[in-house]
Order: sequence, then structure tokens, then C-alpha cells
Amino acid sequence: MRADLNTALAATLVDEWGRAGVTEACVAPGSRSTPLALALAADARFRVHVFLDERSAAFFALGTARASGRPAVVLCTSGTAAAEFHPAVLEASHGRVPLIACTADRPPELRDTGAGQTIDQVKLFGEAVRWFAEVGPADTRPPAMAAWRPVAARAVAEAVGVPPGPVHLNLVFPEPLVPTGDAVPVVAGRADGRPWVETREASATPRQEDVAALAEAVERSERGVVVAGWGADAHPDAVEAFARVAGWPVLADPLSGLRRSRSVVSTYDALLRVPSFAADHRPDLVVRVGAPLTSRVATEWLDSGTRQVIIDHHGAWLDPQRAAAERFCCDPTLLLAALTRRLPAERRTPSLASWLEADRIARSALDRLLDSWTEPFEGRVARDLVVGLPDGATLVVASSMPVRDLEWFAPARAGLRFLANRGVNGIDGFVSTVLGVASVAEGPVVSLGGDLSFLHDSNGLLGASGRGLDVVFVVLDNDGGGIFSFLPQAELPDHFERLFGTPHGVDLVALAGVHGVPASRVETATDVIPAVEKALADGGPHVVVVPTDRDENVARHREAWAAVAHALTLAMGG
Amino acid sequence: MRADLNTALAATLVDEWGRAGVTEACVAPGSRSTPLALALAADARFRVHVFLDERSAAFFALGTARASGRPAVVLCTSGTAAAEFHPAVLEASHGRVPLIACTADRPPELRDTGAGQTIDQVKLFGEAVRWFAEVGPADTRPPAMAAWRPVAARAVAEAVGVPPGPVHLNLVFPEPLVPTGDAVPVVAGRADGRPWVETREASATPRQEDVAALAEAVERSERGVVVAGWGADAHPDAVEAFARVAGWPVLADPLSGLRRSRSVVSTYDALLRVPSFAADHRPDLVVRVGAPLTSRVATEWLDSGTRQVIIDHHGAWLDPQRAAAERFCCDPTLLLAALTRRLPAERRTPSLASWLEADRIARSALDRLLDSWTEPFEGRVARDLVVGLPDGATLVVASSMPVRDLEWFAPARAGLRFLANRGVNGIDGFVSTVLGVASVAEGPVVSLGGDLSFLHDSNGLLGASGRGLDVVFVVLDNDGGGIFSFLPQAELPDHFERLFGTPHGVDLVALAGVHGVPASRVETATDVIPAVEKALADGGPHVVVVPTDRDENVARHREAWAAVAHALTLAMGG
Repeated sequence: MRADLNTALAATLVDEWGRAGVTEACVAPGSRSTPLALALAADARFRVHVFLDERSAAFFALGTARASGRPAVVLCTSGTAAAEFHPAVLEASHGRVPLIACTADRPPELRDTGAGQTIDQVKLFGEAVRWFAEVGPADTRPPAMAAWRPVAARAVAEAVGVPPGPVHLNLVFPEPLVPTGDAVPVVAGRADGRPWVETREASATPRQEDVAALAEAVERSERGVVVAGWGADAHPDAVEAFARVAGWPVLADPLSGLRRSRSVVSTYDALLRVPSFAADHRPDLVVRVGAPLTSRVATEWLDSGTRQVIIDHHGAWLDPQRAAAERFCCDPTLLLAALTRRLPAERRTPSLASWLEADRIARSALDRLLDSWTEPFEGRVARDLVVGLPDGATLVVASSMPVRDLEWFAPARAGLRFLANRGVNGIDGFVSTVLGVASVAEGPVVSLGGDLSFLHDSNGLLGASGRGLDVVFVVLDNDGGGIFSFLPQAELPDHFERLFGTPHGVDLVALAGVHGVPASRVETATDVIPAVEKALADGGPHVVVVPTDRDENVARHREAWAAVAHALTLAMGG
Repeated sequence: MRADLNTALAATLVDEWGRAGVTEACVAPGSRSTPLALALAADARFRVHVFLDERSAAFFALGTARASGRPAVVLCTSGTAAAEFHPAVLEASHGRVPLIACTADRPPELRDTGAGQTIDQVKLFGEAVRWFAEVGPADTRPPAMAAWRPVAARAVAEAVGVPPGPVHLNLVFPEPLVPTGDAVPVVAGRADGRPWVETREASATPRQEDVAALAEAVERSERGVVVAGWGADAHPDAVEAFARVAGWPVLADPLSGLRRSRSVVSTYDALLRVPSFAADHRPDLVVRVGAPLTSRVATEWLDSGTRQVIIDHHGAWLDPQRAAAERFCCDPTLLLAALTRRLPAERRTPSLASWLEADRIARSALDRLLDSWTEPFEGRVARDLVVGLPDGATLVVASSMPVRDLEWFAPARAGLRFLANRGVNGIDGFVSTVLGVASVAEGPVVSLGGDLSFLHDSNGLLGASGRGLDVVFVVLDNDGGGIFSFLPQAELPDHFERLFGTPHGVDLVALAGVHGVPASRVETATDVIPAVEKALADGGPHVVVVPTDRDENVARHREAWAAVAHALTLAMGG
């Protein structure tokens, strides 16, 4: 009987992850991955979620980690299965989500020999991972076994490090893959159930002289602006306190988590489409927290002619406009709190008053127009969800149009949480990401996506009805790729519909039905929120399909921007 | 107006590919990829297939290339979309299928800046590609423009080289992405529509002394065996001629394309499960063409105790058993023809007679047993398709169980072609691979897969009803992963069904219906082939679902092997 080293290795890794507080494990079926799959299933600290499609497994894991901040384990067998993780690993890398991607592998002697399901998995995801390690094949040399716990602990530490992100463990399991009967004990851990290594990261504290100089510049600035993009949601109170003492408006993307207070401007995209407004409100200083805004109009307005400071805690250099001349590589909360302490008490600049007044006018014009339409409008659905969801809810938003509609139409609203795959902005893996969020979120989870993101990850629906999750998928169904109708491609005489519109004709209600997920179609604007509320009350997963028309959608967006421009011109005495 | 260099670059590449005989282009919608998508759509030499899911696009392209031997272009936008190609690129690499993977990218100045949908796409697929090149951004420097055609020509040459495989072009398109109106002419090509570079690969000709030595060994061998795995299908006549003069049986995996003649043994797996047969028929010399057999029993029987020669044209070292002591790194046809010329005329060794007699007995036992079952048996479906499909048909077989059932139960049959993703043996991308095969194959195309391979690539069904393809998907539906019931995992007391069985409960007929693909369920063994025939006669895509039971399936397989053992023992006077 062979000593059961596979099981010992796997159980040791899993115990160490359990000590580190990892609770979610997403497993795709496979033979080579058996030792780790069994160890995860046998450990009561873990919830094991099973997936047929490894791509969906990885995005589900990403969703749990994005919503909880805790790393999730995702496991697959060897071969192309490992490559199926690649899209989610990239999103985790750019979106800074902790993920422990575990690919099972054959032992080295079987590689590059034509053995089944065998590819070169070493560093398969290149530089997208924070750390790569090959673990196993397990042997009984004491220094080799002594590495098992430290490796597991390091995987967690690297995943939740600064910045968080994915790690890749290539786990080598020789046959036999099931327990042999000759049990080898789990390697002993630290006393008291503590992790093998407890990592204490440093605070990235700004230097006093840098804070002083910036505080002085802020105090001098009468026309400053705070810009908050995704990633700012880790620092909401510090941003708001700073904006108050600076007397500046906050242009807050909903994904910043900061579109919630009175000093926030939520209509900046529509406002900045009005050339006179954009020119009159040029800031003399910008402090950006988090990523750039999604809005292209706003981002281009913040060009290199404006003095712009970015707080780049993670060294990510997020500045596609190459507009910023100053980077503060420190913790945003520490910098903003230090600035707030140095500045005089609350002030209200004329610029802030003008921004907030314009925002009030724009919001009122938008609301009036949106409320006048009976048929569902994509922007209105985004707005109504933000207004109508209960406190404590999480809204998961798909890339492409929904994330833009949210930015364009969502008013300030406290008590909600917004999540999206904004690291790489793919539409792939959306359904699974949402389900992953739902599996760990405390309040209700609702998603806003389009038909393409829903279809792209329709495999996320496999088994969804049996996962015990309460989640509502609101799907804006315009039968194709709505974003292209906004782009210059829409003017192409030939090929537009086939290459970009890509109508598919799939009945999404029927598709959900095949997977046992209840679904309904809502044709009237005012029925959308009641349908979502009913679905939330019923519990379980639900799909609410809202049919829209791509051409009309573009026309209505343009009408909305025109309404804001018109209202602004009237109010400003134009 | 900006000079329209994107369009000029894209049209130049496309023209060069058209000259090289590339005809299939698989395009996923995206904005960054617009110049190449438009150039492909504008060129009448190309058939453009549009896909929502980039993973499906890449596997469809792979299917066309696998069936036609001609490289296919697959195109996507930037970001995670590019990573969606990874599984198909790996299969193309290991399966030696020519593929031109084109990923659109932002220009370098936007990389690593937080620009949307931007990752590091340089060498994204690592060593899995034969060649990587970054192309563009197009500029008007003469040496830069002079490279466009050579790069396109080289992409084709590398893809169809020795060995064939995937290439990756990362195509950099700056904005504007649609034609600017200031047209730049396509770079002129060679006269007469010829490609820019016509590559003449050398023949890998075995050395005379090596041929002479091997011929002598073959002549001395009275108990030799030819083993033919996938990859041998490029050399069928040479293998058969050699086997005839050698007087050896050919153990031919159906994927070798050689299970078609009288000297072939088709039941080797069942025979070699009989210990006395395996011991009595130990070969004194093995010549293997192509990959190892799929059968684990047969592969393990061919251990290093046997003198084994492998013909390793592509330097792939396909020998997981590490059994071969001699590698001939040459063209199999050249080596086998040279051996055939040196050997005396046709002979019939006693060993051949014994193999063929055993094969006859085994086949007869199998047929008798299979024909006695009314309810569908997975192995019988494989056998019946091989017997029943019309001449000129292609059978595309999924990895995992179907490829094994084919090997175990298919009799010798000329006039069929067998294809499978045997490079990495993944189940992913199966539906799209089949559709890709159907789009270029001349005769009828039928696939044999399981419910999991069907579901894993259910996105392959998106738009399938509108592609104008005639194809029948035979789906053995045992509601989960059938292969695990054959493995030691089946004996695990807990967790088996959840982690390995993975029942999904999806009604595959209904799922096909959502995509507008007609589907039927066949519950009686003798109705399977008529259902396939009817579907072929009707034209268009069809799904024929054959429900089976996982436990019963294992029991029947064991019964089949036992029946062969019993018949053999009786006949051999045991």
C-alpha cells in the first residue's frame, strides 16, 4: 500500500487556508484534482461550490472574493481546464481581487510526453498573478513537508497583499489519486489554530512635507474637484471629510461607493457634455481617489492642462490620459485624513455651489424625462434600481452599457453597494460573478446586465437553481450588442448588424427556464422595480428580462443629454 | 482627416491571407478589432463566422482547420476576450492544427495605464504558439509598411509548418477604428496574386543506414505489431503497405484513420484485458505511427520491456510510458515506404493469424452482446454510428468517454473520417469544434459526445441554427460525468455524486430548442441510427439525445469485456 501523501498534502493546505479564514472553494470536476477536492469537501470550514465549466467556477470565486474581500479557492483538473481560469485571473489581477487559483497537474515525468490533458501549466497566467508556486509531488523529505504550510500561508498573504490579486498554485498529484488507505498525518500546524505565518503589512503613510504642500495647494484652490472612481470604496469617510473641508464637489462614479452624499455630483457626464459648462467649471486642482471615471467625456475633460493629483496606493499608474503630474503612493485614507486635519474647518466654495446647483437642475431634467416614458429605457432601469433597492442591497453591474448607464443616470443614494468587473471590463463570467457575490453578500443581491453578458456566461446558470442563493438578474435585452450603436461603427453602411449588432434571437426567459430559474419579462417601465421586489420577496434566483430596442435606446440617451443641456441653458440664463 | 492606416494594414493582411488560401474567419464582436473585422467581411475570399463567445469562436476556427488542414483566422477584441482563446490555442498547439489567433490591442501608450479592456497581450499564450508577432500600430515609414505582407505570409507559413500549430498576432489599432475617409492604398502584393513568401519545407527523409537496420529487424520479427494512434491518418497507405509486407497486425485507434482494413485489430483493448492473451501476444518489435493508443490497457502492455520504435516526425516525444528506445525523426510515409521496398513480398506470420482470429472472436462476442440490449448502451451507439454512417461522413468524437467507447467498440470500417480534440483531450469547445468541422467538410458530419461536453460549450449553439450547416449532434446523456464511474473515485463513500458525478438535470432537448436547433430523444437502441439518418436527410443542425444511466453503463462495459474474455477462453480451448 502506498503512503497517502497526496491526501496529506491536500489536507495540510486546506487546514492552513481554513486557519487563514478562507471559506469559499469552487471546484470543477476532474480526476487529477481529486486529492484537493476531497480535502476541501471534508473540511467543515469550507463551502464547496461545484461547477461544470471552469470559466464559471473561476468567476464565481472572483465574485465571492470581490464581495467579501476574502480570498477564494478555485480548483480544476489539468489541461485546457487550467486555461479556462485565465479570463477570471486577469480580472482578479487588474481588479485587485484575492484569488487562489489551483490547477492540478501531472507529475513532471509525464509532462511533454503526450500524456492526456497535459500542457505546460508552469506560469500559465504569466505576470497576471501576484505569485506562482509549484507544489508537490509530495514526498516525505522533512524539508519538503515542512514547506506545505508556509506555502499555503504565503498563497493567502500574497492574494490579500498590497495590492490584492490572484495567485496560482500548480498542484502536482501523482497516482493513485484517491486515498490509498495508508494515511499519512497532516503536517502539524501552529498552536491554537493560528496560521503558519501571520503577515503584517506596513501602512503606506504619506510624508509630512508632501501632505503640507498638498494641503496648502488645496487651501489655495477655489475650484478644486475630487474625482472618485472604483477602488475609492475602501476610503469613503476619508474622502467625504476631505471634500467637506476643501469645499469641493465630488464627482463620484457609482462604483466608487461614494455617490451617496450631498456634496456629490452625480450628473457630471451630462453636464460636461455641455461645452459652456465644461469650460466654465474647469478645475484648478483635482485630487483623484481610485480609478478614473468610466465617463469618457469627464475623463477627457480632465486633461493634462489641469493640475491633477492621483492617490496611487497600489502603484497601478491608472491614468490613460497621462494627465496626472503628481502621484501620492500612499494609503488614501491616511493622506486624506492628514489633509483634513491640516485644513481649516468646513468651507463652501462658489464653485461647489455652482456644481451642486447644476447637478440639481440636471437631475430634475433627467427625472422628468425618464418618468415621461412608459416603455422601459435602459438608463431608467439603472436609475430606478438605485432608487428602489432596499438598504443593504448590492447591485452588481455588467461591463459595456450597464456600467455606463449606472454612471449616467444613478442619483446619489446611501445604503447600497455597487460591484462590477472593472479590472479589465470584460462581459465574460458575469452570471457567475453575480452568483458568487450572492453567495457571500449579507443583503439582497441584484444584477444589471445586458443580454450579451447574460448569454456569454449562460453556463453560470448550470446548477444555479440548486445553490440556495437569493439573487435577481435584471437583463436589459436589446437582442445584441447595444454599445456599438453609440460608437462610430453604427455609421458603417455594411456589416454593422452582422459584425457589431449581433442579434441572437434567444428567448432569455426560456433559457432561464431550461436551467430551472424562474424568469419573467417586463414590458412597462414602472413594472420593473415591482418585479424585482417580488423576485426578492420570493427568494431564490430570478431573471427579470426587460426588452429594449437598440436604436431607440441611443435616441433616448441623446434626448436625455439634450434635456440636461436645455435645462442648464435655461437656468443659467443662456 | 487622419490617414486610414488601420484599414490599409488590415486589408493588406487579409489580402495576403486570401492569397495563401485562407478562407475561414471567425470573428467575435468588439470595437478594437473593427479594422480587421471589416477587412475580412469586405474580402469575398473569406467566409466570416460571427460568435458572441470568443472561446466558441476559437474552437470553431480550430474545427475548420482540423478538418481542412488550412489555417483559420480567429479575431477578438482586447482584454479578457483574448484570454478566451487560450483553451483552443492549447488544443491547436498539442493537436497540431494551424490557427491564426488575432487579438486586437490598444496602442502601447495606453497599456498598463488603466485603460479599459487592456491587459498585457504580448506572448499571452506563452510557448503554446509556434510564433508570436506584434503588428502595428501602422505607420507610414516604408520599412514598417514593407513588413505587413511578409508578416501575414509568415503567420500562415508558421501555422502550417512542421509541425502545424497556432500563431498569435497581437494587432495594434489606434483610434479612430472606423475608416477615416482618407484611404491609404493596400500595400501592393506580388504579381499574379501569389503570396509574398512561398515556403518550401524540406522532407524529413530517413537515412539509408537507419532504414536498412530497421528493415532487418522487421524481417527477423515474427511477432511484430504496428501501433497507429492519432496523427497516423496522414499516412494510411504507407502504414497498410508496410503492415502487409511485415506480416504484422495493426492495432489502430479509430483516430488513426487506419481502422479500416482486414489486417487491423479493432478489439485490442478487450483482448488485452485477458491476461493470458496479453502474455501470449507480447510483441518482439513495435513500430508506432502517430500518438499512443487511447487505451490505457494497451499502452501499459507496451512497456519498456518491448522493443518499440516510434516515428516522431514532429519531435513531439509522445511516449508517456517512456517505453520507446528508438525514435525515427522523419516523415512516416518516407520511412514506411522505404522499409516496404526493402522487405520481401507480403507475408502472413502465425502471430498475425492469431491476432486476427482473436479479433474475429472478440468482435462476434461483442456484437452478440450489444445486439441483445434494447436500451441504448453508450458503446453500442459508438459502434452503430461507425457501422451505419454513410461513406464520406465525418464522425467528430468528444474527449472523455466517447473517444474511449469508439476505441473499444468501433469495428474496422472504410470510408469514414474520425476527428477529435486529442491534443489536450479537453471537453471544452466541443460543440463549436463540431460546427467548424461541418462548415468545411464535404460529406455528412455527425458528432458523438456526452452531456457534459455538450453543456460545457452550449454557447456553441448560439446562432448555430443560422449558420447553414448540416450536422447531427448525438449526445449520450447520462446526466453527469460518466468517466468517473470507471475510476477509483467511484468507490469513494462520500462526495462522489457531488464532486464527480455532477448531475445537472438539464433537459438537453429543451436547451437545443431555445437555440432553435431541432432535437429529439431516442430511448431504444435500434432507433438511434434511424434518428441520425433522418436528421441527416432533413439537413440543418440536429441534436439526438440518447439517455443512458451511469451505473448501468459501467456494468455493461464490464459485461462486454467479460464476454470477450469468455469467448476467447472457449475458443482457445481454455
